[in-house]
Amino acid sequence: MKAKVYLVGAGPGDPELLTLKALRLLRSADVVLHDELVAPEILARIPASAWVYNVGKRCGRKPVNQQEIHALLVAYARKGLSVVRLKGGDPLIFGRGGEEMEALREAGIDFEVVPGVTAALGAAASARVPLTDRRLASKVIFLTGHRTTGKTPAAWSGEASAETTFVVYMPGENCGRLAAELCAAGLGGQTPCVIVSCAATPEEQIERTTLAELPHAARLPAPTLLIIGAVAAAAGSTENSAGDSHTLLSVSAADLAAGLPAGTVP
Amino acid sequence: MKAKVYLVGAGPGDPELLTLKALRLLRSADVVLHDELVAPEILARIPASAWVYNVGKRCGRKPVNQQEIHALLVAYARKGLSVVRLKGGDPLIFGRGGEEMEALREAGIDFEVVPGVTAALGAAASARVPLTDRRLASKVIFLTGHRTTGKTPAAWSGEASAETTFVVYMPGENCGRLAAELCAAGLGGQTPCVIVSCAATPEEQIERTTLAELPHAARLPAPTLLIIGAVAAAAGSTENSAGDSHTLLSVSAADLAAGLPAGTVP
Repeated sequence: MKAKVYLVGAGPGDPELLTLKALRLLRSADVVLHDELVAPEILARIPASAWVYNVGKRCGRKPVNQQEIHALLVAYARKGLSVVRLKGGDPLIFGRGGEEMEALREAGIDFEVVPGVTAALGAAASARVPLTDRRLASKVIFLTGHRTTGKTPAAWSGEASAETTFVVYMPGENCGRLAAELCAAGLGGQTPCVIVSCAATPEEQIERTTLAELPHAARLPAPTLLIIGAVAAAAGSTENSAGDSHTLLSVSAADLAAGLPAGTVP
Repeated sequence: MKAKVYLVGAGPGDPELLTLKALRLLRSADVVLHDELVAPEILARIPASAWVYNVGKRCGRKPVNQQEIHALLVAYARKGLSVVRLKGGDPLIFGRGGEEMEALREAGIDFEVVPGVTAALGAAASARVPLTDRRLASKVIFLTGHRTTGKTPAAWSGEASAETTFVVYMPGENCGRLAAELCAAGLGGQTPCVIVSCAATPEEQIERTTLAELPHAARLPAPTLLIIGAVAAAAGSTENSAGDSHTLLSVSAADLAAGLPAGTVP
């Protein structure tokens, strides 16, 4: 296989939400640099011959910074190896995929992006909340807690309509301020909200609330995701959707090889 | 398997962007109702014993309307069958998943949502455009062409900031009007745009333009997706990313069964 870096999405948590393409690339990778949040069942699919590094920013160890990740990607690719950069969710949503692509472009390294199921979609599926609905929400906005607040009501006015679904990644401490700003911009205090903690994992928890009550909502374990909008009223189930999940699809090396050109499995 | 309806995302086009869970459910389905845009390679994974219906709205035949789809889902589930409703992209983004969940709730039918890679993520990966970037775009908005235009500059003001990425599903004929409204709301005419046609398929085409030039951009074959925002300047490659795709991972029935509780394969 030609030296190349694959920026690959690992999906929102459930190892079964990995794509077939991601699995194929992991099985033929020489080097895998992965985020902290990637499920162990997914990492278990990487062949023992590959070099595997946790470059996650949440580890207790000395963190690997973004420049070091770029340097590792470039260095391994220049050795002629097939490098997988495995990221939680989708690589191009709140994942610094843009910076990694830029570093690879500047170094003249060939790369490919393999999309994944972003956390918003995993959380919406678990909470059974349609992110759009032609009767309720004509658009959906993905934003993050820490880059979102501090806006005037006027600045929010176009977005803070009843026709909008907000999905807040990592809502964190700014939840209350965001709620206050959205209310000030005209969104009703009774606007339904859903908080999904550890979406698509066995630890998943789902809590329903309203915009007015959001500042007082229970603090659920990170990572959490917050959905705000009329569609969230549909959140009907707090059952653990990962509860009936199965063992990860068993795919042998021979099966994988059958779908690959000869000589590509390291 | 208990009678249940699975609302399953098939991903953006490339059959390899199916999730492992979607594949498992398709392989054990009794009935599959699918959209027009699902790839033939995916449909080929459904066992011959299953009943398979194309309920797509784009077929030349007499279309199956939404109420008829609901009635079919309920009727088959009530027969005690495992029913997969297979939808292009993700089931909860612009896919009437909300209406189908509501119909199932009202009928008292158990259901589960299996998220998929939505078209925006497939198109962004192909065009190599980060939808968010901490240096350029703090949020991303998914909207549709036909529900979007007709807003005053004031109504756009909150959204039409340089810090926003817009992803327009099915931009269609309203492209020019949308561009004019965004410009009127303050977005620069030089704001980069990317149009991706038939994302993540062998027919994929990618065209770069600007907001000012958007009304004059070439009409590419549907389905198309339009990305607007500073991040789109990064769209570096017009090569067909599906070009090096492989045969779909070969997974035998025995392999699948190995990952499932006994007796669940029909």
